[in-house]
Amino acid sequence: MSDTTKNANESKKTSRFDPNFTQNVINAIGPKCDDRTREIFSSLITHLHDFAREVELTTEEWMAGVKFVNWIGQISTPQRNEAHRMSDVLGLESLVDEMAHAQMSEAGDIPTSSAILGPFWSPRAPFRDNGDTIIRSPHEGLVTLMKGKVLDSVTKKPIVNAVVDIWQASSNGKYDFQDPDNQEDNNLRGKFRTNENGDYWFYCLRPTAYSLPTDGPAGAIFKLLDRHPFRPAHIHLMITADNYKGCVTQIFPKDDPYIATDTVFAVKDDLVVDFVPFEDGKAVRKLELDLSLAPKDQPAKGDPTPSTA
Amino acid sequence: MSDTTKNANESKKTSRFDPNFTQNVINAIGPKCDDRTREIFSSLITHLHDFAREVELTTEEWMAGVKFVNWIGQISTPQRNEAHRMSDVLGLESLVDEMAHAQMSEAGDIPTSSAILGPFWSPRAPFRDNGDTIIRSPHEGLVTLMKGKVLDSVTKKPIVNAVVDIWQASSNGKYDFQDPDNQEDNNLRGKFRTNENGDYWFYCLRPTAYSLPTDGPAGAIFKLLDRHPFRPAHIHLMITADNYKGCVTQIFPKDDPYIATDTVFAVKDDLVVDFVPFEDGKAVRKLELDLSLAPKDQPAKGDPTPSTA
Repeated sequence: MSDTTKNANESKKTSRFDPNFTQNVINAIGPKCDDRTREIFSSLITHLHDFAREVELTTEEWMAGVKFVNWIGQISTPQRNEAHRMSDVLGLESLVDEMAHAQMSEAGDIPTSSAILGPFWSPRAPFRDNGDTIIRSPHEGLVTLMKGKVLDSVTKKPIVNAVVDIWQASSNGKYDFQDPDNQEDNNLRGKFRTNENGDYWFYCLRPTAYSLPTDGPAGAIFKLLDRHPFRPAHIHLMITADNYKGCVTQIFPKDDPYIATDTVFAVKDDLVVDFVPFEDGKAVRKLELDLSLAPKDQPAKGDPTPSTA
Repeated sequence: MSDTTKNANESKKTSRFDPNFTQNVINAIGPKCDDRTREIFSSLITHLHDFAREVELTTEEWMAGVKFVNWIGQISTPQRNEAHRMSDVLGLESLVDEMAHAQMSEAGDIPTSSAILGPFWSPRAPFRDNGDTIIRSPHEGLVTLMKGKVLDSVTKKPIVNAVVDIWQASSNGKYDFQDPDNQEDNNLRGKFRTNENGDYWFYCLRPTAYSLPTDGPAGAIFKLLDRHPFRPAHIHLMITADNYKGCVTQIFPKDDPYIATDTVFAVKDDLVVDFVPFEDGKAVRKLELDLSLAPKDQPAKGDPTPSTA
């Protein structure tokens, strides 16, 4: 018996309402539907109906939900993905991210943890040379020298030619394409290749905490649930290398007040880092951070483990 | 222990992933959130996460869902409510409707069953006189005399001054505001008051089966799930009277091919009716249908039953 069938049966036992209704909706799925789609929608329909039954959702509440779902798409634009944001606010992207990327290692060889991509990554970020700065427009932040190595999580050896793709909001809490009047294209974005010793280094900003936009559905949820809209300050990183599993992640300054209550639930312990005072004529902070990638053949946490029976 | 807490605990036992994640998201709800909102969102977050864990939703599948949710709002207009349609296609409106309106009667005094409102009811439908026709524009349908009484479901006595609000699609499957080139405003809509004997009568069309619009998210779901997009032919009715619980419902011709597979799951046995051949110089079909309303003080099926312990 599949999990979905089991759930549907459990609902049957406890519900005061038509015990066959959910199974009837699932049974409407036709024979040409592929197995994975059938699995996903059977589970989705079961949980949607169980949710409605569990809280005995009223007509008015359902209708409020209908309006809310329409609002999500209506406020979205090519520069604003509110469905993405809504799924972040409900923890869904972090959960999917954990299932996709959490790595397992018998020997304790733990690569850098992943964190959600978020809606602000750009496929068009330029390559820049090590030692260059991603700061291209005026700001009020603390210039930071960020440096480290990219390492193999198993052998601990440096990875040559790994790509560190970094993006961050400016000191006003906005990314370049949210803020075209103040920031030039690709401000605070760049890709860097590790050298023959696996080293990368560049100048960026100590990141600044910011509020998610509160003028749409996500803002309505924050108000409704009495939650704050802040993300802790963070820098986004996407680290890739041939023959290694890529890592999409974020790093957070350890003294940020929102570390424990990130409104998109993306903080993990090994992603909390220390920006220390420093002076080299360009920067006033330094962040030293080695990044660790798992070889492509290492099993993922979500992979089935061999049976010992 | 509440249902939500229990579900979260069950997830903990079976998940290979962070066992505290869902509870952390629920715990982010602040102290000023009202109890009902907390109940709804705790259950919603639990079921959303349990769904994702149960099917081990991939990043690509999640991202497809994000795009899909945005599409729902983007295609919606004042004349097109795709979130409403989507919730119908997944059975949610029929489920909420059952919980809100199903009536219980120890004595077997069953009022007319409810069915979903759907997105085409209009608050502006005009009152018309008994014997009048709601057909105001050209059509290719079968003119029908519909007549009957509105009755008290307990006493079986006629209800005077009850309002029967009727709306239906034309023979091309479209409602007036979907089809302004062919149908005048309020074509195939009208409200009728029962007379001193509880009688109503008017001319309408034998309804025609139609496909839901397939050019948007609902259409994509039909294709993905190998489901047909048809509703059985139906007439919408909203029956109201002072001191009675109103009834929103639909009636379906018994020989319609989609009776068993209504794509919005709204058909109930007592709503299947017989349009019989007839001739009065105006109509070629007749439908005789008594409608039955529950007194306001009758308990609903969803109400708690007194404990016998």
